[in-house]
Amino acid sequence: KLMQKMNDLRTPALVVYKHKVEANCERMLKLAKDHGVTLKPHFKTTKCLEVAIMQTGGTKCGMEVSTLVEADLLAENGFENVIYAYPISPHKTPKCAELSEKMKSFVVFVDNVAALKALEQWKLKDNKNWQVLVEEVVKCGNVTFSGLYSHCGHSYKCKNAEEIKEVGKMATNKMLTLVDELKKQGITCPSYGIGSTPSCSKPAPEMSKLTEWHPGNYVLYDLMQVKIGSCEIDDIASFVLTRVIGHYTKGEDVFLIIDCGWTAISLHGVKDSEETSGYGLIVDHPELKLAHMSQEHGIVKSKDSTKPLDLSRYPVDSFLRIYPYHSCATCAMHPVFYVADQNDNIIDHWRPVKGW
Amino acid sequence: KLMQKMNDLRTPALVVYKHKVEANCERMLKLAKDHGVTLKPHFKTTKCLEVAIMQTGGTKCGMEVSTLVEADLLAENGFENVIYAYPISPHKTPKCAELSEKMKSFVVFVDNVAALKALEQWKLKDNKNWQVLVEEVVKCGNVTFSGLYSHCGHSYKCKNAEEIKEVGKMATNKMLTLVDELKKQGITCPSYGIGSTPSCSKPAPEMSKLTEWHPGNYVLYDLMQVKIGSCEIDDIASFVLTRVIGHYTKGEDVFLIIDCGWTAISLHGVKDSEETSGYGLIVDHPELKLAHMSQEHGIVKSKDSTKPLDLSRYPVDSFLRIYPYHSCATCAMHPVFYVADQNDNIIDHWRPVKGW
Repeated sequence: KLMQKMNDLRTPALVVYKHKVEANCERMLKLAKDHGVTLKPHFKTTKCLEVAIMQTGGTKCGMEVSTLVEADLLAENGFENVIYAYPISPHKTPKCAELSEKMKSFVVFVDNVAALKALEQWKLKDNKNWQVLVEEVVKCGNVTFSGLYSHCGHSYKCKNAEEIKEVGKMATNKMLTLVDELKKQGITCPSYGIGSTPSCSKPAPEMSKLTEWHPGNYVLYDLMQVKIGSCEIDDIASFVLTRVIGHYTKGEDVFLIIDCGWTAISLHGVKDSEETSGYGLIVDHPELKLAHMSQEHGIVKSKDSTKPLDLSRYPVDSFLRIYPYHSCATCAMHPVFYVADQNDNIIDHWRPVKGW
Repeated sequence: KLMQKMNDLRTPALVVYKHKVEANCERMLKLAKDHGVTLKPHFKTTKCLEVAIMQTGGTKCGMEVSTLVEADLLAENGFENVIYAYPISPHKTPKCAELSEKMKSFVVFVDNVAALKALEQWKLKDNKNWQVLVEEVVKCGNVTFSGLYSHCGHSYKCKNAEEIKEVGKMATNKMLTLVDELKKQGITCPSYGIGSTPSCSKPAPEMSKLTEWHPGNYVLYDLMQVKIGSCEIDDIASFVLTRVIGHYTKGEDVFLIIDCGWTAISLHGVKDSEETSGYGLIVDHPELKLAHMSQEHGIVKSKDSTKPLDLSRYPVDSFLRIYPYHSCATCAMHPVFYVADQNDNIIDHWRPVKGW
């Protein structure tokens, strides 16, 4: 079903390669299966229903969300077993009650007594219990202890697969120690998961001892994940399509203007420096860097300041593709994702849910 | 017309004080009038129809836009005399032709020969001419030279009103010299404007010699503008409403978690340091700074690291208000603006246009 050719898109546009998203989703499902753990993938990166379906392998069962609008979207579309992986506060209790009553299983995460008391005081319909994940164990009236949850955020400081595995191993062992301690106190822990995209992409063997993994960014990956060692550059499934819209020479400064500003790719990234590619990687152009951005345009310079750009190589209206440094942030800037097949046909438009 | 109380909003939420937006719009209209110039306000900050109406004093005439979806929104709602203040490239010619034919006056900005040739080759209906603003003068067949345009971006490096006025004066004099040179060559310049929010908020007397000003950010202002010297802190018309959702003590590190991450306020701002308030100013809490953000939560610390926070002062579910460092960037993160009156009633929801 061809909707348009990629080169007919008005730019800037966020393009997502469907076959790469599918491959990333399938690879992670297989990795989890091979390690004997349940994948509870995180929805926060794309917030597109179509992606959630791929992330669950079509089962629509077991997702994590970071906002209540994500949970609403999944609940309205027949998903079950959704974890609101975010510390709730008392004010969010009524909305979480609605979701707990609507879905077979909606699990909340609690990290403070005020929030826990609010849950205890709010009676769910049909004597249903709140399902609660925690970092430390608690006991309350109408609250079922659902398990332990940890993000494993240290993995974001890694630089290669070996370092990632070491972090994954340590985080797993820490979690298993806690589970053992609980067992000695007579408390069974139904689930205990860690997981970030790095640690689940390059899992330590120990991670098979967990019950759950919950990575999110892996559906698209990005430059940050390449630098950490989670993936290869070709695994990155989204890019900002932009056109050259002008050539400038100001003294010794020679640069391109492109129609991609921070509204299209975000300001996440490594600031301008000679060594880096700046705020994103310009695909197939190792000589270029995205040096600066204003609201609606970007300035592209030569990465090597001793070699000025040959502007004739980049005519006005020619295309550049930019891999985002942080795809979660880039996705947050776009109301529509243009979904492409391997032949650069646009075959679908995905619309992420926005707000809170 | 009360829709809800501010304290009933689910957080994070972008709140806009309508009376402050009105005051900012009226003040800028008066400043321009007092200087005998036409205000052509920029739409890029809020992209909300309701604000464009206020910016034009209800005339719906004379706006600048940074994207074609902004132009579409204005054209569909009866606005006239819209300037697409963005360097167009050939690919955008068809859409610009549609807008030029639809509106009495739609002006484009050209900075390269390829774009100009594309305009020349595209004949508008009814022999209408393209209306073109430039940085340097050009002559073509079906193109009417509409004037000179400059952004005056240097004013963003200022630190007080005197510096702003000096930049405004220099930019004005440079523009007037160019107008004079054209006159000697027999070319009349119908319009010549400069303007950024700093230079128009604190105008140099010379700026009365221009025909147009085109500021944008002034409708909301922000911390950056306060630092530049464009406005007072009480002129800032928007803030992110957030709740405290957790208390943490990790060794000597004592901090609050709030439900405002970079999806709610953006990463624009001054990075964590002892001296600054971080990514935004926490209203009425000079002791706090927004030190760090992840996708959906923020970490609030004591600005003075020698004085640990007294967590009991900030109970879970209590509110904080954060003035953005860059309101254009914060607005770009929100699908809805919650419009408040002086009594903190939410009286309207404004929905910005998104995309390109």
